This record gives sequence, C-alpha cells and structure tokens, in this order.
Amino acid sequence: MNPSEPKARARNRLVGDEPLSPGRLEAFSDGVIAIILTIMVLELKVPASAEPKALAHEWPIFVSYVISYFYIAVYWINHHHFFHRVKRVDLPILWSNVALLFCLSPIPFFTEWMASTRLSPFPTAVYATTMLVAGAAFYVLDRVIGRQGIGEADIVLVRRASQRKNLIAISIYAVAIPVAFYRPTVSLALVFLVALLYAVPSLWIDRYADILEDKEEHRGEHGTLHKPYTGPPAGHH
Amino acid sequence: MNPSEPKARARNRLVGDEPLSPGRLEAFSDGVIAIILTIMVLELKVPASAEPKALAHEWPIFVSYVISYFYIAVYWINHHHFFHRVKRVDLPILWSNVALLFCLSPIPFFTEWMASTRLSPFPTAVYATTMLVAGAAFYVLDRVIGRQGIGEADIVLVRRASQRKNLIAISIYAVAIPVAFYRPTVSLALVFLVALLYAVPSLWIDRYADILEDKEEHRGEHGTLHKPYTGPPAGHH
Amino acid sequence: MNPSEPKARARNRLVGDEPLSPGRLEAFSDGVIAIILTIMVLELKVPASAEPKALAHEWPIFVSYVISYFYIAVYWINHHHFFHRVKRVDLPILWSNVALLFCLSPIPFFTEWMASTRLSPFPTAVYATTMLVAGAAFYVLDRVIGRQGIGEADIVLVRRASQRKNLIAISIYAVAIPVAFYRPTVSLALVFLVALLYAVPSLWIDRYADILEDKEEHRGEHGTLHKPYTGPPAGHH
Amino acid sequence: MNPSEPKARARNRLVGDEPLSPGRLEAFSDGVIAIILTIMVLELKVPASAEPKALAHEWPIFVSYVISYFYIAVYWINHHHFFHRVKRVDLPILWSNVALLFCLSPIPFFTEWMASTRLSPFPTAVYATTMLVAGAAFYVLDRVIGRQGIGEADIVLVRRASQRKNLIAISIYAVAIPVAFYRPTVSLALVFLVALLYAVPSLWIDRYADILEDKEEHRGEHGTLHKPYTGPPAGHH
Repeated sequence: MNPSEPKARARNRLVGDEPLSPGRLEAFSDGVIAIILTIMVLELKVPASAEPKALAHEWPIFVSYVISYFYIAVYWINHHHFFHRVKRVDLPILWSNVALLFCLSPIPFFTEWMASTRLSPFPTAVYATTMLVAGAAFYVLDRVIGRQGIGEADIVLVRRASQRKNLIAISIYAVAIPVAFYRPTVSLALVFLVALLYAVPSLWIDRYADILEDKEEHRGEHGTLHKPYTGPPAGHH
Repeated sequence: MNPSEPKARARNRLVGDEPLSPGRLEAFSDGVIAIILTIMVLELKVPASAEPKALAHEWPIFVSYVISYFYIAVYWINHHHFFHRVKRVDLPILWSNVALLFCLSPIPFFTEWMASTRLSPFPTAVYATTMLVAGAAFYVLDRVIGRQGIGEADIVLVRRASQRKNLIAISIYAVAIPVAFYRPTVSLALVFLVALLYAVPSLWIDRYADILEDKEEHRGEHGTLHKPYTGPPAGHH
Repeated sequence: MNPSEPKARARNRLVGDEPLSPGRLEAFSDGVIAIILTIMVLELKVPASAEPKALAHEWPIFVSYVISYFYIAVYWINHHHFFHRVKRVDLPILWSNVALLFCLSPIPFFTEWMASTRLSPFPTAVYATTMLVAGAAFYVLDRVIGRQGIGEADIVLVRRASQRKNLIAISIYAVAIPVAFYRPTVSLALVFLVALLYAVPSLWIDRYADILEDKEEHRGEHGTLHKPYTGPPAGHH
Repeated sequence: MNPSEPKARARNRLVGDEPLSPGRLEAFSDGVIAIILTIMVLELKVPASAEPKALAHEWPIFVSYVISYFYIAVYWINHHHFFHRVKRVDLPILWSNVALLFCLSPIPFFTEWMASTRLSPFPTAVYATTMLVAGAAFYVLDRVIGRQGIGEADIVLVRRASQRKNLIAISIYAVAIPVAFYRPTVSLALVFLVALLYAVPSLWIDRYADILEDKEEHRGEHGTLHKPYTGPPAGHH
C-alpha cells in the first residue's frame, strides 16, 4: 500500500521500528494536558482582603476557571477516544498532535486575561478565537488519524460523524467571536455549549452503533459490512 | 446484566474496547495530583528580608502548607485504594473522577488566600468549605465505583464502611466551617483530624477483615459468604 | 514470617493484593521530583534591564539554581536505586516516601529566598537545614526499606554501607548550618560536596562488590555467603 | 567486551540488574520536557488593559513563545529517536541526559527575559547562547549513546550523520550569537531554522536509508554489510 515500502524496511533497520509508540505519544499528551489543567490555578490572583465581598468580586475568575477546566478535561477525554485507534505514529500525526497541544497551552493565559479584565469584549473574543483555533487543530488531527482507518467501512462512518460534529463546533465558535463584542457572557455560554456536546464522547458513536446494529441484523449474514469501503452506501446522504 | 449488551458490542466494534483503561485514568489522576501537590510551593511568597524574624512571621504559610500537603497526599493514597477495584471506566466514573480532580485543584489557591490573610475567619471557612466539597466529590465517586462491585458480599461491606467513614468526614467539615468564624485554628485542626483518619487507608478495612476472618472460621465451610449479596446480614445493624 | 498472615489474606480478599505497586509509587515520586526540578525556574525573576550587568548581577540566582538542580537530580537517581529492591509497598514505606517528597518540595522556595537575599547568612543556614531534613527523611526511608531485605547477607552489607554514607552526609549538613553564618559560600560548597558524593550511586556498592568478589573466590564453593544473616562477619568492623 | 565483567556480575547481585531502565529514564525526561513546554505560558504576563492595542503590543512575547515551544517540541521528538537505541542506562548516559535536561530547563527564563525586553540585543544573544549550550549537551549525549552501538556498521553511519548534523546546528547558533547584537530578529530566525532542520528527525536517516538500500542491492548477497565496523568504507568520504 505504502509506495516507499522497501525504503521503509531499510530505515527500520537504522532507527528501529517505531521510535515513538502511540502509547508514549498518548502519555506525553496526557502529561501536557494534566499540566495545563492544573497550572491554570496559578494564574489566579488571590484577593488582597479577607472579606467575603473581596471573594465575591472575583466571580469572573471563577466562571472563567470553571469553563476552561471543563473545556480542557473534555479535550483530554476526546483525545483518548481519538488515539485509541492510532496504529502507528507517523510524522503527520506527530506534528498535528504537537500543534493541538500548542493550541491548548495558551488557554491559561487567555483565561487569565479575560478574567482579569472582568469579561471585557475584546479579551472574550480572543478567548473564543483560541477555542476556534484549538477546534481547528483537533479537526486536522482527526483527518490525519482518519487516513489510517481508511478502507474499513465502520471506521469511515464514525470518522465522518466525528468530523461533522467538529465542523459544527467550529461554526459555534465562529458565531461566539462577534457575539463577544456585544454580550461576552453569551459568547462564553456558546463556548461552554460546545464543551457540553463533547462531554459524552461516544454520543454520536452510539447513534451509529444503533444504525450498525440494525444493519447487522438485516445483512450481517451476507458479510457485506466488512468489505473495503469504496464510497458512501447508497441512500446514506 | 447490562441491558444494552448488544448495542455495547456494536459500539466496541466502532471505538474499540475501553478507549480509557482504569490504569490510564489512574495515571492521569496521579499526574494531576502530583502537580497540585508540588505547585502549591509556587503560591508561597518568599520573605523580602533575610532576617529570622521575617521567616518566623510567615508561620501561617507553613502551617497551611503542611496541612494542605498532607491532605492532598491522603487523597492520592485513598484514590488508589478506590481505583484498585475499578474494572471498566464508564462515563459516570470518568466524570465523577474529573469532578474530584476539579475540586482538589483550587486547594493551592485557597491555601494561599488563607495563609496570606494570616488565617482570617472568612478565608479559613472557605478553605474548610473546599474540603467539604472535595469530600462530597469523593463520596460521589465512591458510590459510582461501588455500583461495579454490587453483588459481591465482601465488597458491599467494605463499600458501606467506606461510605460511612466518608459521611463522618463530611460532618466534621460541616462543623469546621462555622467554627472558623470564632477559632480559625480549631477549624484547621478539625480539617487536619479528617486527614489523619484517612492516613491509614485500610484502617476500617482491617476491622472488617477481622470480622470476615471470624465469620470465615464459623461458616466458611458452608460457602455462604460468597453468595450474591441480597441485603444486610441479619443482626448486622 | 508476618504474624498477621491470616488477617492479611482476609484483607487481600477485600482490597485486593497491593493497591499501590512499587512501580506506581516510583512513577508518582518521579512525577513529583520532575515537577520540583522544573518549576524552580519559575521562582527566578528575570532582570528588569536588558544590560549584561543586570544579568551578571543575578549570579546568586544562577549559583543557587545550579546547586539545587544538581541536588534534586541526585535525589532522583538515588531514589531509584533505593526503590529497585522494594518488593511490596507497606504503610511505613508509603508514608516515609511521602515524607521525603514533602521535604524536597520546599527546596524551590528556600532556593529563591537564599538567591533573592544574595546568599545572606540566615537564608543560607535555612537552606542547609532543609538539606539536612531531606537527608534525615532519606535515612528513615532507607531504614524502612532495609527491613524488607533483612536476612539476605549481601543486602545487609549494602544497606549498612548506604546508611553509613547517609549519616556522613547528615554530619556534613550539620557542619554547613553554623558555617553559613560566617561564610555562606563555604556552606553552599559543603552542600554541593554531599551531592557530589551521591552523584555516582553505586560508588560504595562497587567497593562492596569488590569485597564480595574476593570473598566469593575464597569461600564461594562452601555456599556460606547466602546463609541468613545473623550478625556482622567476624573481623569486619 | 566490558573489562569489569566479573565485578559487574557481583554488583548486579547487590543492586539488581538495571535500577534505572531506558524506559523509565525516557519517561522521566518526557515528564521534565512536558513541564518545561507547558510552564512557559506562566512566564507570560497578561496585558493590563483589555484593548486590542495592548495585545498587539505584546508581539515579542508571542514570537518568543512560538519559537521556544516549537524548539522544545523538536528536542522532545529527537530525544525519543535517540533513546530508542539505548540498551542499558550506564552512568555517562544518565548524567549526560540530566545535563541536557538542565540545559533545556532555563529556556522559559531566557525566553521571558528576551520577550520582556522586546528582543533587545543582549538578551537575544543570551537566548541564542542557551540554544548553543543545549545543542552541545545534545551532541555529548549523542556521542555517549553512540558508543553502545559501536561495532554495527549501519548504526555507525547513522550516528555519524546525526553528529555531523548536530555540528552544523551548533555552527548556526555560533553565528546567531553575534548577529543578535545587530539584528535580533535575524538571530531568532537562525535559531528557528535549526529547529526546522530537526523537525523531521529521520530526514538524514532517510538519505542513509537510500544509500543502504542501494548497497544492499549491490552487495547484500555477500553479507558484507553486517560485518563489524572497522572504518569508513572505501570511497565514502
């Protein structure tokens, strides 16, 4: 399948097979995401006074913190659902994964800016833009990983659903950016809505599992489901 | 047992079996807890002067730091005792674990606030409240994990002991909160007391191990102990 | 060997065998040490000016940073040499390990204080005291782990050498503390000297390996070396 | 092969075989690199104002951050390509790895200094010097690891290519340092260029894979390729 097969064999003799396994890349990504999730608290400034009013005054900090925490946790969970199917880490997967981590890492910075300016329009718009860029990086990673499963009909269906869902998320972010200039809290609510959509990673997969189950009952005995994927099944779009 | 068994099989074909293993979730939780434990030191401000008096003046920092460190270490140890029995990471376990990590992560923030206000009443009450909320998140996780062991009589006994212990901890926190307004140091001592209760994770389990041992000697030969659990044994409450 | 064997078996049925494996405890300790090592850089304040003089003026920062970094790296390496022989994590090992990590974690704080006061006497003495306390925690962990190997003559020899080396280290720290009040740089040099002693973890072990090798040649055929250890070999002290 | 073989056997009986496996050293290095990569964002100061102009004014922060992030990610990827071939962690590998991590860890500090002085000449030159020192530490680690593969002709070729590439990188840094005093942005571009060269870790290896492939076709049947390496093949330089 791979045109450079003989060359790949020669290279394997030199660098060994798979210097970076999917498990190791997943562990590294887990580490980076765990750190992003946890250092965010260091960005928060404690109130100078010991009064309840001083703490209540910091509500934009707590709102921003909760949304960002939930958001990054959702990325972590979905990243695992993604990587679970990766068979081999090639260069495009490696670098699109680094790109995704890069897009997630300034979230504590922009969260703090938005919080310290008390959800001002421009910082909130920048925050939503960060989310859009991270969503786009996720989309790219999804497509790059998706190429490995090509040929398996089931996976193609799931990938397509996943990518469609991702495009919906990106569209919601695209709406959240201009909205930030008029109603920053509505903009934040839109960002939060996307995180909710992803909180149950197998939501869409379950829907496809239902379809699949039905199909299996009807034509499983003909063994047609596992044939190499050659295009969308008739009547599916 | 699971009503959606056939659907689950179809879904497994799509996303693979167990995208997130208990081991990986444990490793991620370990990572987050290790970071919380260690970054707390970054919240501490070094004295401006090089005099012994300047260091001694910071005693609230050191007291708060020691209690929070010990407290988080205790959570780490007990988290392992918990997860040891998890067979499969389902969505409720996943999210109640994220919720627990979320409740632990602001501890450095509230520790710093309490320390920088020199154990003022309100910040100390907020600190105790954080502990109560984390204790409640632990209780929820305990119950959610407990559902997996249902049907095994031994486990049910242990889970019940664990949950009773947890409710006692939450009650002590509930007392510590109002106490903070009158005697912050007593409030802190109560929080510390709970950590002590959990420092030996198998303390209660050992007590149950004793009971179990006795029972085994008396009726082990009848094989009644391993029968599916249908309710509290007569004469146990 | 363990008097509570039957009880332990009953407890295993309840919590499973070994909720926390040596490997997991080692991984957690590695995580904490990696974080301590790396966040130290966050404590350093960058010079306000872009002039070479501004950077040169910060030499106490760089000296302190290098020593602390080297010091923590040495702990990391020796921790592995320690844990390599741990067969089972019991409660004393668990908590003396947490105590060691606790003693290492304020090193960035005291490093910064010493650096920001430009190696003033008192902060340098406090820094050396931190090192002494960490050394004592290491000594306790060594003794606690040592109990597991008891009965194996070779291990007893190595443990004894290790503990003697540790007591020497603690003595050097004890000297470094008063010295700090007269010559802070000499005090720091003493601390650095201890780290050098530990930089090659098997230095003393190698010496014992030599002794062992000789012994093996002389009496290996009698099989006396592997008999349970009952006291120091005659003529060894 | 190793002259101290019998002594090594005696030592193994004492400390066990390999207290620190390559996998564990790799995991620790991964942890340190993940933390360096992620805490860099904590060094960035958020703008005080909520205005777009305030964010645009911080462009030196973003440029520095992007370059440093990309740079550290490249080290992470290449570190894995390196360690993949390590069979046993000996003391020189252990300490040259610690030295590399030490050289990478002040990157957030010097990145922040360069950014906060808005790419002033001297801080940019110091930044380039940090890169040169890290490159030199990488070169040393490469040579130390390279000694393990000695005797295998293929590996020698790859190692030689890797070391040549590393010397080119160091030369570019050596040029970037004085350039920083005249044109800081050109200096930064040179540093970025090196990172680009390393972004595809197997670039040079692929070239050698081609050579190897050709050779194999011509003389593979004579089995000469796998003979112990005794010097550069005739006509290769």
